[in-house]
Amino acid sequence: MVTPIAIVAGVGPGTGAAVARRFAKAYPVVLMARNPDNYNSLVDEINKSGGKAIGISTDVSSSDSVKSAFGKIDQEFPGAGAAAAVFNASGRFARKPLLELTEEDMVASWEVSCKGAFLFSQSTLPLLLKTASDASTKYPPTLIFTGATASVKSNARMASFSTAKYAMRALSQSIAREFAPQGVHVAHAIIDGVIDIPRTKEWLKDMPPEAKISADGIAETYWNLHTQPKTTFTNEIDIRPMLEKW
Amino acid sequence: MVTPIAIVAGVGPGTGAAVARRFAKAYPVVLMARNPDNYNSLVDEINKSGGKAIGISTDVSSSDSVKSAFGKIDQEFPGAGAAAAVFNASGRFARKPLLELTEEDMVASWEVSCKGAFLFSQSTLPLLLKTASDASTKYPPTLIFTGATASVKSNARMASFSTAKYAMRALSQSIAREFAPQGVHVAHAIIDGVIDIPRTKEWLKDMPPEAKISADGIAETYWNLHTQPKTTFTNEIDIRPMLEKW
Amino acid sequence: MVTPIAIVAGVGPGTGAAVARRFAKAYPVVLMARNPDNYNSLVDEINKSGGKAIGISTDVSSSDSVKSAFGKIDQEFPGAGAAAAVFNASGRFARKPLLELTEEDMVASWEVSCKGAFLFSQSTLPLLLKTASDASTKYPPTLIFTGATASVKSNARMASFSTAKYAMRALSQSIAREFAPQGVHVAHAIIDGVIDIPRTKEWLKDMPPEAKISADGIAETYWNLHTQPKTTFTNEIDIRPMLEKW
Amino acid sequence: MVTPIAIVAGVGPGTGAAVARRFAKAYPVVLMARNPDNYNSLVDEINKSGGKAIGISTDVSSSDSVKSAFGKIDQEFPGAGAAAAVFNASGRFARKPLLELTEEDMVASWEVSCKGAFLFSQSTLPLLLKTASDASTKYPPTLIFTGATASVKSNARMASFSTAKYAMRALSQSIAREFAPQGVHVAHAIIDGVIDIPRTKEWLKDMPPEAKISADGIAETYWNLHTQPKTTFTNEIDIRPMLEKW
Repeated sequence: MVTPIAIVAGVGPGTGAAVARRFAKAYPVVLMARNPDNYNSLVDEINKSGGKAIGISTDVSSSDSVKSAFGKIDQEFPGAGAAAAVFNASGRFARKPLLELTEEDMVASWEVSCKGAFLFSQSTLPLLLKTASDASTKYPPTLIFTGATASVKSNARMASFSTAKYAMRALSQSIAREFAPQGVHVAHAIIDGVIDIPRTKEWLKDMPPEAKISADGIAETYWNLHTQPKTTFTNEIDIRPMLEKW
Repeated sequence: MVTPIAIVAGVGPGTGAAVARRFAKAYPVVLMARNPDNYNSLVDEINKSGGKAIGISTDVSSSDSVKSAFGKIDQEFPGAGAAAAVFNASGRFARKPLLELTEEDMVASWEVSCKGAFLFSQSTLPLLLKTASDASTKYPPTLIFTGATASVKSNARMASFSTAKYAMRALSQSIAREFAPQGVHVAHAIIDGVIDIPRTKEWLKDMPPEAKISADGIAETYWNLHTQPKTTFTNEIDIRPMLEKW
Repeated sequence: MVTPIAIVAGVGPGTGAAVARRFAKAYPVVLMARNPDNYNSLVDEINKSGGKAIGISTDVSSSDSVKSAFGKIDQEFPGAGAAAAVFNASGRFARKPLLELTEEDMVASWEVSCKGAFLFSQSTLPLLLKTASDASTKYPPTLIFTGATASVKSNARMASFSTAKYAMRALSQSIAREFAPQGVHVAHAIIDGVIDIPRTKEWLKDMPPEAKISADGIAETYWNLHTQPKTTFTNEIDIRPMLEKW
Repeated sequence: MVTPIAIVAGVGPGTGAAVARRFAKAYPVVLMARNPDNYNSLVDEINKSGGKAIGISTDVSSSDSVKSAFGKIDQEFPGAGAAAAVFNASGRFARKPLLELTEEDMVASWEVSCKGAFLFSQSTLPLLLKTASDASTKYPPTLIFTGATASVKSNARMASFSTAKYAMRALSQSIAREFAPQGVHVAHAIIDGVIDIPRTKEWLKDMPPEAKISADGIAETYWNLHTQPKTTFTNEIDIRPMLEKW
């Protein structure tokens, strides 16, 4: 029997942390972020509260860094399979008029949201397939991508972000179609609204709390996607707070 | 404190029954179908197993019949609010070349999927709003519509079905936008594939079980939608079995 | 050789009239509206300026009325085929909160936009097929449906309109898929914005003229769709003025 | 008065050449391709038949190369504005299982379809704006992107292509929204099917000619988009041959 673990890329103080906490209730979790400050305290928190977590400093846009990270996973959890992998990383966000956008702005966004998602997928899919082929697995192994409003709507001055997010959605759909017949459940979540995290504390201040999305709510929804059986895969979901206009 | 109940329209041997069983674990349930044969044994089953259920013979396409049904609900559960309402009814399905479709085919499909969904919504929304305004409510009251592949793709010879299903999706989106600010969670589910029910037993016989959607899986997904907090509403979800081509 | 005519349903002072004028440059045109006041002066105008037009008072939501109208077409143009048919009718529009919408509001909208479009399609398709099978035909026969923003976005308080418009889009797509292999070109136009007609004169008054859609512009776009060859069918197009937010 | 020119990037023996020929009837045209073999004979053909054309060897994925190309345009047509710019380039296409895709495959596709489209847009938009501000301009200046089925559907083993094409569609929509108020018309064309060009001669051989899209048909449709007035902008269009399944 394969040891199933959960891998979360893009752990900061918001969705990534909430997802890690939620999946840590069921699996050892691997937390990835470029800056260890983004996961260190959470790793401690999970390990102290009876879970198992490790953090790996990873630049998802670098194939060397991603390979190295998965090498460490293999050392730490030899022969493990992945029960879940969540790609939650996002690149630098340049909201600029098109004529002021730089090539670097375009590249920076794509490098994380599309290339990073691709590299992460290539490294996690073999681990997800290993879990899929293990008859004792409780839930189908699940690969989830965190998208945004900009995954389906490309507004003025959002081109660097939306091109990368549209691309990530395409990646998710292609992988979903290719790997579902092998039992891997792939889902793309359109997070449509402001997530309630320290960085957005001052946003929408005059609105009630239901104007922002709860990171824990997202995490619970991701967990529920993970528990869907092979007969009932959801490949795309939208999530917004009750006061969001759409 | 309002007594929260769940109301399921369109109870047959498939999704409707599964949804009723799932929500009966938490709430008294009202089962609606035109033909009592479609719910009688399930009502017994739920009542015998510690739940509470009543069945009401209802033609959702008739405003008189719907009004009468909600009158009975009020008699049976005076002052109750709705925790959840699921519209799962579907009209007669005429797969025909366009030139052979009759006006009656078009009407029959619309009468259930669009007008029926409208009448059901008008009667359940006051009950859902009552629950929404009750601070002791555990989960935001939820109105779920069961859609199909034909809700988003309109193939040749499917016009009577797809026009009605597109219309129901429009209804769902409009209600979602109007009532979310009042705390009602509205979701539309695109059921993309063959549901595994007695009627479809002979379909896809040469395929493994993962070629069909599990009605229980749909019910569990609906329940999970219901448990989403006000900060985290999903308004549309797709559901397909792992072997479905899409 | 078949005499090709153009048939426009829903002729008022806006899009329908502009479309009729444009197609009258190439074909005899049949104008349909419930109230002859909507087409009488236009019929005169076209006939005086060297074209050929007739008007037929038609209620597109009534199969008897539609049948009678096509009977008159056959009398007036015996053996004619249709080069183009444009469904431009729209039902009564009730912008109301959902709980105030009546069953009649829902029906009235659907009767025109969906049932009317269906009846019109059933009567025009045989005429379009006749033209398609005539090797001397210059352009593939074309069936165009006039949609709206509400064909793809269903806002709060728009349910009566959007359910009918979503349904019409489904109808268009199903017919497009069924009849393209026989050479009939079906297109759906999403008219996204306010059309510049007498009724909307006071709307957007503080904006420049580019805030509204030109009916003549729509007509020219429809004509251009009509001229596409069999190798190059457009099935959906959006149209908005340059100052429209979308 | 500004001299309006047309600029076509991605000129090969198919759509690009047809578009160049069509726009050369009205404007001097600039043809861009990496390999001059792709445009040399066409430049001759246009110049000999009374038009005006120049070819510029350009790698659209290189900002230096694009800058250099637009420097040459300025030398050749000093002070010119752009009446139309068509981005028709496409990167290397790697149809592979996801686990066999290389980072280079992903980059190569994005470099042309997204970064190239971005660089081309940044260089053409000032020229398009110049035309937009010239009151004597006949048609609103137009920027058209050639998309594909993979711009809206991401199939298995298509990830390198579809991620780049989804991204290009996002780019097109963002630019459309930002620049429409300044009078620039931006359109994205979903080319859904096999284009009838020398390279695809052996494809669909057993099918009638209506199974493939005509490059000339696309060019005519692009021209028709270009002639739309400011009141009537189409931002997205699909194009498929009559025998295409969709």
